Amino acid sequence: MALPNTLRLHHSAGSPNSRRVRVFAAEKGLDLAFVSVDLGKGEQRSSEYRRINPRQRVPTLVLEDGTAIREVLAIWRYLEETHPSKPLLGTTPKEQALITMWERQVELEGFAPVMEGVRNSMTALKGRAIAGPYDYEQIPALVERSKLQVANFLSDLDARLEEVRFVAGDRFSAADITAFVTIDFAKAFAVSISEGQRALARWYKEVSGRPSFKA
Amino acid sequence: MALPNTLRLHHSAGSPNSRRVRVFAAEKGLDLAFVSVDLGKGEQRSSEYRRINPRQRVPTLVLEDGTAIREVLAIWRYLEETHPSKPLLGTTPKEQALITMWERQVELEGFAPVMEGVRNSMTALKGRAIAGPYDYEQIPALVERSKLQVANFLSDLDARLEEVRFVAGDRFSAADITAFVTIDFAKAFAVSISEGQRALARWYKEVSGRPSFKA
Repeated sequence: MALPNTLRLHHSAGSPNSRRVRVFAAEKGLDLAFVSVDLGKGEQRSSEYRRINPRQRVPTLVLEDGTAIREVLAIWRYLEETHPSKPLLGTTPKEQALITMWERQVELEGFAPVMEGVRNSMTALKGRAIAGPYDYEQIPALVERSKLQVANFLSDLDARLEEVRFVAGDRFSAADITAFVTIDFAKAFAVSISEGQRALARWYKEVSGRPSFKA
Repeated sequence: MALPNTLRLHHSAGSPNSRRVRVFAAEKGLDLAFVSVDLGKGEQRSSEYRRINPRQRVPTLVLEDGTAIREVLAIWRYLEETHPSKPLLGTTPKEQALITMWERQVELEGFAPVMEGVRNSMTALKGRAIAGPYDYEQIPALVERSKLQVANFLSDLDARLEEVRFVAGDRFSAADITAFVTIDFAKAFAVSISEGQRALARWYKEVSGRPSFKA
């Protein structure tokens, strides 16, 4: 389902939040126009980028009429509503709710702790512990806490995946995207799937075979 | 629009996340069956409650068929999809995306910092800095950082409300619910609207007049 290139995704190749959107779009076969934002050079803080995203974060989806949509969940919702085939956020109210619930749990208990650990430990992010327009100092105690949280997250996800094929049930969904991106992101943080976590390893192997995850 | 009392909301009167759902349901005129969870007595950690919510958090919506939906965003989505009149999450894809975006921003930059500040400072929550099945120690440095974040949030929200009537634009939405609950919650945290924040005060006064906020 090729689109005219009128949906522009401002993103960064190394940004895990950008990847959540790229994989989502690839699953749906959408052909977005990509605009790279160089985070290393601080382009997210440039006056040009701030005009489309005053929160100075990636990704941002810019529509044909110039409307700028920030935040992964908001971009996902737009893409799902406008391109409902190959649904990733559910089709019935119950399924929509359960996918929202599982995706949220993965974000709160996995993705956000990895992000917090990374942002509070990287020397390059000194004084920039939270992405956005304000400067906040790093808090070293958060780094150790994040590692505990991520270990608990992996253990809980392994238990969940002993019962179901995918994170939210029997269908691949946005919850799998966040979980997979989290686990890849956590590698940079020296936390990964343990040898005994066989359900998690089975799921990771299956999901990694999807072409969309090259995005 | 009275429902048969088959939707049960497990909640706590003092829980701001529970309030986000109560106000949402009241805006739609939905008649939920409320089941109180006494957080002070630790009922959220009882084996009975853990059967419906293994994450040990409130609120949880239990459907007629026994399906338990955790997480505010997931419960909202269910209620919106099954009772679309008086929409609070938008009706067109663009509006749905923009409400998701603003609600998310309010939660990330306002609600979550207030929660973090409260949980890391209350003596009663020593060793329980994060709600859920695991114990995490409080980190005192987070309390001061939270106060900075909330002050920045209020200042940014005031600027936003100089341009628009409601948080996400010209219609009342779920983004207003999270913003209002955040500001009431922040009072317990000794942070409130400053004298110069006139747009924010105008909005707060207008929203506080809605009967749903008694919920």
